Amino acid sequence: MAMDDDHRMDVENALLGPYQKDSKTFSSLKNKPFWLVQTALRVDKRVYYLLALFTVLSLFYIGSRSSPIILFVFIVCTGSLAYAVYLASWVLAKDEGPPEMSEISDAIRDGAEGFFRTQYGSISRMAGVLAFVIFGIYMFRKSTPEQDAAGLEKSTLAFITVLSFLLGALCSGIAGYIGMWVSVRANVRVSSAARRSAREALLVAVRAGGFSALIVIGMTVMGVAVLFASFYVFLGVDTVNNMKMTELPLLLVGYGFGASFVALFAQLGGGIYTKAADVGADLVGKVEQGIPEDDARNPAVIADLVGDNVGDCAARGADLFESIAAEIISAMILGGTMAKRCKLEDPSGFILFPLVVHSFDLVVSAIGIASIKGTRDPSSKSILEDPMIILQKGYSVTLFLAVLAFGGSTRWLLYTEQAPSAWFHFALCGLVGIITAYAFVWISQYYTDYKYDPVRQVALASTTGHGTNVIAGVGLGLESTAMPVLVISVSVVITYWLGKTSGLQDSRGMPTGGLFGTAVATMGMLSTAGYVLTMDMFGPIADNAGGIVEMSQQPQNVREITDLLDAVGNTTKATTKGFAIGSAALASFLLFSAYMDEVSSFSGVPFTTVDIAIPEVFVGGLLGSMLIYLFSAWACAAVGRTAQEVVSEVRRQFAERPGIMTYQEKPDYARCVSIVAAASLREMIKPGALAVISPIAIGILFRLVGQATNQPLLGAKAVAGMLMFATVSGILMALFLNTAGGAWDNAKKYIESGAYGGKGSDAHKAAVTGDTVGDPFKDTAGPSLHVLIKMLATITLVMAPLFLDN
Amino acid sequence: MAMDDDHRMDVENALLGPYQKDSKTFSSLKNKPFWLVQTALRVDKRVYYLLALFTVLSLFYIGSRSSPIILFVFIVCTGSLAYAVYLASWVLAKDEGPPEMSEISDAIRDGAEGFFRTQYGSISRMAGVLAFVIFGIYMFRKSTPEQDAAGLEKSTLAFITVLSFLLGALCSGIAGYIGMWVSVRANVRVSSAARRSAREALLVAVRAGGFSALIVIGMTVMGVAVLFASFYVFLGVDTVNNMKMTELPLLLVGYGFGASFVALFAQLGGGIYTKAADVGADLVGKVEQGIPEDDARNPAVIADLVGDNVGDCAARGADLFESIAAEIISAMILGGTMAKRCKLEDPSGFILFPLVVHSFDLVVSAIGIASIKGTRDPSSKSILEDPMIILQKGYSVTLFLAVLAFGGSTRWLLYTEQAPSAWFHFALCGLVGIITAYAFVWISQYYTDYKYDPVRQVALASTTGHGTNVIAGVGLGLESTAMPVLVISVSVVITYWLGKTSGLQDSRGMPTGGLFGTAVATMGMLSTAGYVLTMDMFGPIADNAGGIVEMSQQPQNVREITDLLDAVGNTTKATTKGFAIGSAALASFLLFSAYMDEVSSFSGVPFTTVDIAIPEVFVGGLLGSMLIYLFSAWACAAVGRTAQEVVSEVRRQFAERPGIMTYQEKPDYARCVSIVAAASLREMIKPGALAVISPIAIGILFRLVGQATNQPLLGAKAVAGMLMFATVSGILMALFLNTAGGAWDNAKKYIESGAYGGKGSDAHKAAVTGDTVGDPFKDTAGPSLHVLIKMLATITLVMAPLFLDN
Repeated sequence: MAMDDDHRMDVENALLGPYQKDSKTFSSLKNKPFWLVQTALRVDKRVYYLLALFTVLSLFYIGSRSSPIILFVFIVCTGSLAYAVYLASWVLAKDEGPPEMSEISDAIRDGAEGFFRTQYGSISRMAGVLAFVIFGIYMFRKSTPEQDAAGLEKSTLAFITVLSFLLGALCSGIAGYIGMWVSVRANVRVSSAARRSAREALLVAVRAGGFSALIVIGMTVMGVAVLFASFYVFLGVDTVNNMKMTELPLLLVGYGFGASFVALFAQLGGGIYTKAADVGADLVGKVEQGIPEDDARNPAVIADLVGDNVGDCAARGADLFESIAAEIISAMILGGTMAKRCKLEDPSGFILFPLVVHSFDLVVSAIGIASIKGTRDPSSKSILEDPMIILQKGYSVTLFLAVLAFGGSTRWLLYTEQAPSAWFHFALCGLVGIITAYAFVWISQYYTDYKYDPVRQVALASTTGHGTNVIAGVGLGLESTAMPVLVISVSVVITYWLGKTSGLQDSRGMPTGGLFGTAVATMGMLSTAGYVLTMDMFGPIADNAGGIVEMSQQPQNVREITDLLDAVGNTTKATTKGFAIGSAALASFLLFSAYMDEVSSFSGVPFTTVDIAIPEVFVGGLLGSMLIYLFSAWACAAVGRTAQEVVSEVRRQFAERPGIMTYQEKPDYARCVSIVAAASLREMIKPGALAVISPIAIGILFRLVGQATNQPLLGAKAVAGMLMFATVSGILMALFLNTAGGAWDNAKKYIESGAYGGKGSDAHKAAVTGDTVGDPFKDTAGPSLHVLIKMLATITLVMAPLFLDN
Repeated sequence: MAMDDDHRMDVENALLGPYQKDSKTFSSLKNKPFWLVQTALRVDKRVYYLLALFTVLSLFYIGSRSSPIILFVFIVCTGSLAYAVYLASWVLAKDEGPPEMSEISDAIRDGAEGFFRTQYGSISRMAGVLAFVIFGIYMFRKSTPEQDAAGLEKSTLAFITVLSFLLGALCSGIAGYIGMWVSVRANVRVSSAARRSAREALLVAVRAGGFSALIVIGMTVMGVAVLFASFYVFLGVDTVNNMKMTELPLLLVGYGFGASFVALFAQLGGGIYTKAADVGADLVGKVEQGIPEDDARNPAVIADLVGDNVGDCAARGADLFESIAAEIISAMILGGTMAKRCKLEDPSGFILFPLVVHSFDLVVSAIGIASIKGTRDPSSKSILEDPMIILQKGYSVTLFLAVLAFGGSTRWLLYTEQAPSAWFHFALCGLVGIITAYAFVWISQYYTDYKYDPVRQVALASTTGHGTNVIAGVGLGLESTAMPVLVISVSVVITYWLGKTSGLQDSRGMPTGGLFGTAVATMGMLSTAGYVLTMDMFGPIADNAGGIVEMSQQPQNVREITDLLDAVGNTTKATTKGFAIGSAALASFLLFSAYMDEVSSFSGVPFTTVDIAIPEVFVGGLLGSMLIYLFSAWACAAVGRTAQEVVSEVRRQFAERPGIMTYQEKPDYARCVSIVAAASLREMIKPGALAVISPIAIGILFRLVGQATNQPLLGAKAVAGMLMFATVSGILMALFLNTAGGAWDNAKKYIESGAYGGKGSDAHKAAVTGDTVGDPFKDTAGPSLHVLIKMLATITLVMAPLFLDN
């Protein structure tokens, strides 16, 4: 397991060595950081215990000096992290099954960890460069009048922003790593447990998913809380200095940007990896050779299974981490701005509310996870229980508790004598958010589940050929954007109105709570994020377990169990996407407001309107929408190109080694893994760079145009136009891509279940084409767009000084 | 040819009679209005000559009383209409070829005219209902202070708006009819001429296209000029009343709405018809049975050829008519507003400028058409000349003259002593517009012509299967939005700046020419519309001619000639779409400004900003973008559903009449024609109604929300948000759909030319799938979106009083 620099170079340059006989060695994917880990492992464990104790104690000390609310958050987070560690140790204590299983699992793990290291190596280098850029920008920026009054040095500000950025990036990386770490270990344990009982297999998958969900969310909350408390203490807020607590949240934007920057590349690289391998494997294996999915004879099968881990687990961990971070920070900024405008005596409740909501999220999700028991319901009569019902029972528990906790939190933190009924208005906003989330989940189920008419229509269209299948799927995807948009529209209007009528007023007597109402709704939407992420992580683990069972040729009854879990995993994955895009939509709207607050603050001029009747702002919007199309194009094209490489390689292996099909020869799995890894790393750069550079370029360009044509703040305005249009286009495009992809997938499954001639029929072939088209839609471009729209919002927050005239 | 009411009912209800033996009778598609025509035909011709003379004389009288510019426009239009009539009589004097040709052509003509009558019957009923609604709205609307001052009664206003609406609708219908009328007569004459020489065939097609282009544009310009002059005279503008000429253009909005209303349904119905027939015919004929395109054995082949006429000719005629009407009216409104703000002494130049530009457009296009000669260039050596080069030579002539004419027009009409250099600034704006049009044409060629890399990549992706072909096409389509958006962005910013610095200032010394600069650029873009439309109409005529040649089994050398013309037609069709969407983008931006002016005028409150930071405006935008997706979804799904009906019918005919494949039995063409016609009429209603009702519903809803939450003008603001977002999304979606469709089509053609295995290879099959998917994209949803975004803009202009608090 030694570091192997030459081979790493080969992977990056796609210069591959000769064929390998042994499917287990992926040495070419091993990579630098490993010596660090090795050194770390040599140190006495007691040193770590001491270090951890010291860290916890100092955190609690800092927390106690800033606010009792922060202390509460620390305690809850520590508790849930402890519970997460318990879940992990429970999962790891399970057996890895017979050698033929663990051998496959080892190969998957090696491939996934190798890719992860190389990928995060690239990402961390880019993040490092960006950190320098940010530092440079903040050294030359204008400070706000408030910051001047508080005596904050430019260098302090630059240091704070870069530190937040790096911490956000690091935590995001850890979140991704943990998601992948547990899934590559849980997969084989689920397979093994499936040999004994369905319930045990389910439990292993749920608890593994629960572990990473709790870690990811706990880390997000802790990260923000630690930064907030540290800044509070070290900057001497509310004490010696003039710095106010209401100013603090704006200093956290770097954290959100760091998180979304890493998440974007993680999702892009992982998404390209997983779908290129999947499409490539299916096109030759299923379509041309007619062998089943996950068949051991397919040279790309290990790459496909690795993809599930790096694409779904690692990337989704980073994605959710970033979602929650963005949402917490934007809500804190809005809370701070509102508290300042209303001149509240103690603003801490409004500012820290999001942290408390997610602390309760951790608790109720943990209870929900714990409510799924290892023993069967004795009243159940059928041989196989429906795992969906079990998962949904746990969700009901979580949801019920979340509503109670949310109501309690609003009364605790948002009660103010200035507006005694405000907390109740905000509690209602939270309820609207929870209902919105539920509606989103229901809508995405309606459009992607073959129990309902839309997917059946796509299946029917498959009977008249490939073309009509694709047209029907595209039509369905485009149509599916309507209902979510209506739901979002209604909830934005209602919660804004609830907030506005909450009784909170600024010094001129104007109602100010509107946007905060929308922010609370977003928090309501995400108030069960822990459990939802658990269900989401469940999917790829079950998928992998199924792959291992198939490849190691287990008996039929074991396959049935994992197939059932896999099917449920597909549904939970699709619904989580609905959930993720809904929260992204609301979070972006909040971040947009935060951006306007920030520009006002930096420029010293009120920046409260974004007038799209100004041609440059309209053009900014046009460019923003175009950015979404171009990004999606490049993400899809990347999968297409990489898949073509896989197809050529798999075809070649089948042609050159005819023994593969008769099980006499072993395919060279490693070669496919290397090809996909190298191509994904190469292909993620172009769309990623586009996303990072475009907003900056637009801002600077229109700043110059504004200077030339004497229009103040034009850069900031054009960027605002870009943000709004990109958000709207991004939401619609993501909904289209995710739903169309999910529907094609399930239309194929519906036909495989026996409709229209079943497997092998012409309708099935057409349905496989649709599924192939849907793959990059739903697992590469779609989820990348979730991250992109929040990354755009956070990058503009951090880079705002660039768009303003000095 | 008697009217046949029962059969008509059957068509509408899709209840079809028994199989028909004779492929020529389409009596079931004949329809009511015919008795009117018959009566009309019985009247002595001299009566008509007298009527025509009287009309012309009274028009000239009215024209002379309003403005010499109007008189100039009348003279030019009358001249070009006369030239158009000459072109038509030249084309009609050509022979119809042998009976086997004219038999097919008769069948196509009957099918097309039958569908046209039924379709326009439905449309005219809807337009009638809408006219009553508009009348009602205007009877209860608030009149503007200016109109009150001018002593305009509400009933007069209502009458004027309804009259304009009906005239616009009628002219749009005539434009569509003429486009179809000439193409169903020219197709067989082109086929026949192709038996003699390629040059003659080309000339017939060009002159037929030129006829309808000149008629369509001439009618648009005449319509607006007649309305303007009549209102001027009858309302006593600038004389007895206080009514100002600058107010007049706002009264014309009904004309634009009528035109776009009819165009929308024409494009939807025609687009669904043509592509459902095409997809259905190809899926069974080409893919399943392996017979060539346009083979006489395919039962859907006549329906397919009818589709080219009703979908491409009729619909494109209505589309261009509406584009130019919308652009003229919006530019006139902007010119009027600016003239008023700048207190220009004689505003007529600024207001009537668009009419003059299009008068010159008629002249230069006519010269361009005339420059294509019937004799070959003696220096040419090759046996077959490239028709593209001949067409482009004509375009160069037109373009050169257009630049000169445009410069002259700006100096003539836009010279004002207040700002002596303004005309030159506007001339430059026009030049930017012409360059923009040229760039659009070039970009769409780059992305859809297989001479370039993008289409070749799609062809390459076909070698790895259906799925990768579709992914590559989608990727290409999404990517192709980038360059046009950049071009539009640059031209908006530049022309706005040119206009702003033109020296025109309002009473407070603020520069006001910005938007007018953009308007002039739009006119520049459309300043060669006549020739471009000629080239566009050329396409479907050549396509049809090719079909007739194929079906009547002409010798190889005749086929070669029509194939060549058909290929050129595909290119000109694709490039015209780029041209159409570019002008739609700019025209919508202008109409949006006109809408803001109108709301200011009605509400008496300045309405100059559209602030998307207001949640309701943002929500309006979200809904506007969603509307585009839903509309596209329904348009694509309509084609998919109708195509499935065709597939079933064709499969059944092949199964029940095995003699068809061996030429022993004749297929029942009429049945396919009836099925497609009935389904298209049924399917065009849902997306059409969505487009008409949504903006009204959004406006009224947010007006009520505004009243409840005490936000004045909220309805108008939300509609503005909707308009802007719908425009941006519509442009991008249309670009995506058109380009992807064109690229798939040509990737297939590239493979058919011999690449990657040529016809019959697996790559070719995959490419046919892509082509099928692209059909509804590029010929139904895409072009309908062009019309939709302008219809949205005109409907909000007409319905604006509904969105305002009384």
